[in-house]
Amino acid sequence: MTDSIQMITREEVMFFDTDCGGVVHNLAYLRMIETCRTRLAALMGMNLRTMAETQLFPVVTRTEVDYRTPAHLGDWIRIEGTLAEIEGARFWCQFIMIRESDEKILITARQALALVQMPAGKPKRLPAEWRARWGRNS
Amino acid sequence: MTDSIQMITREEVMFFDTDCGGVVHNLAYLRMIETCRTRLAALMGMNLRTMAETQLFPVVTRTEVDYRTPAHLGDWIRIEGTLAEIEGARFWCQFIMIRESDEKILITARQALALVQMPAGKPKRLPAEWRARWGRNS
Amino acid sequence: MTDSIQMITREEVMFFDTDCGGVVHNLAYLRMIETCRTRLAALMGMNLRTMAETQLFPVVTRTEVDYRTPAHLGDWIRIEGTLAEIEGARFWCQFIMIRESDEKILITARQALALVQMPAGKPKRLPAEWRARWGRNS
Amino acid sequence: MTDSIQMITREEVMFFDTDCGGVVHNLAYLRMIETCRTRLAALMGMNLRTMAETQLFPVVTRTEVDYRTPAHLGDWIRIEGTLAEIEGARFWCQFIMIRESDEKILITARQALALVQMPAGKPKRLPAEWRARWGRNS
Repeated sequence: MTDSIQMITREEVMFFDTDCGGVVHNLAYLRMIETCRTRLAALMGMNLRTMAETQLFPVVTRTEVDYRTPAHLGDWIRIEGTLAEIEGARFWCQFIMIRESDEKILITARQALALVQMPAGKPKRLPAEWRARWGRNS
Repeated sequence: MTDSIQMITREEVMFFDTDCGGVVHNLAYLRMIETCRTRLAALMGMNLRTMAETQLFPVVTRTEVDYRTPAHLGDWIRIEGTLAEIEGARFWCQFIMIRESDEKILITARQALALVQMPAGKPKRLPAEWRARWGRNS
Repeated sequence: MTDSIQMITREEVMFFDTDCGGVVHNLAYLRMIETCRTRLAALMGMNLRTMAETQLFPVVTRTEVDYRTPAHLGDWIRIEGTLAEIEGARFWCQFIMIRESDEKILITARQALALVQMPAGKPKRLPAEWRARWGRNS
Repeated sequence: MTDSIQMITREEVMFFDTDCGGVVHNLAYLRMIETCRTRLAALMGMNLRTMAETQLFPVVTRTEVDYRTPAHLGDWIRIEGTLAEIEGARFWCQFIMIRESDEKILITARQALALVQMPAGKPKRLPAEWRARWGRNS
């Protein structure tokens, strides 16, 4: 049995999130997901303030996102992020975005991340204890 | 004597807020100010969810911003917004952005806004009661 | 045999595209892809200026993107977009992003789009002639 | 008599530039201005690709922008940037944004910039030859 890690963030849809179609622009959801993901990473021990010094960053290597229902100006959105899987050199996070007024699922997404040492851009193996602690147990 | 209106919001600096100079990008501060301003407008009775229906929007007509001290990844920033002045057809909001770790002033800014009826783009006179309630008393 | 549709756009990496990791931020690539995709859609007859009037918009329903090599400030990037497949209610576009200085592949991506009638948000069937003209012939 | 420096860039309004008010969002104009300003700086000898290495960056210290007429999806905008004034430790750029279809002025803006050595954040005196070459002569 392993621990599971989850982070929940909330966002209110602002003008800068919307476009002239009257709904939230597809890029804005991904910005909201980044905030959730960054706080999820902090739970895993990746601290924003130390990253800038160590120059060791979690870097997105793949994104898959399904746009299901559009959100509108003023909607409150709950973003639920979960650490889904640990591989040797990358880990997967999973996201569900839900409108709080009607609990409708707006977005589902998953992202693969690697740990990359900048400025060289070299990927590093993930810490062994990550898999022990959070690896999927199926 | 008139009432005064203030709104305080907080933001944690994310990767998408920074640039390769290693500090927060100048546009990111203005996005944070928009969130503060939108919540300040809500206090004045301008509700985000009804705006989209009425198509009556507060529109920025002038921005002045002074960049004093740069913020970094992971900094927590407090944005203090104040309704500063009501004129016939526009009102001014004032903003101070402060880094919470050392209480340093990062940004000072002010913005003029008009109430605009979309899609025609016609500016409307501000409600008379605004000046009575919140007009500057000097 | 059917026609094939391709659009090539170019972008120079600006400060607002980068983050404090020293490379282009993952959202910035998707903004560049949107510009390419919008011009690809114009080739298919979807005109930006008429969209705002007809309120019939091509809407992204799924994005898949692989981040292969990071770009840096000042890099020139070529974005090659192709109409890849027409289905009943959605079509797929495919993108490759290449750094011009060394012809390295930075990003590969594909996106599914639907035609959506706003503000109702109703998806419409794609025009029958699209499949005849541009449908995949394998 | 001194030389004068000007840079003209063009942008087509994309979805990501607009908001649900149906017009271009106030932050999007400033992103377009940054592209113009960056190319203006290149004319002055500040090269994007060398900046990342030298870590000497032109940094905006003040922005003033007046929003005069809103632009819409699909509009082509011409951004005219001029080096307006050289002071001891900062220089001013001036911008006019014009819609090409009707030559209407959308935006006027000016920005002060300093040359800052990162990561220390120390401002440097401007090169003496700048004032000789481009200083205002009134």
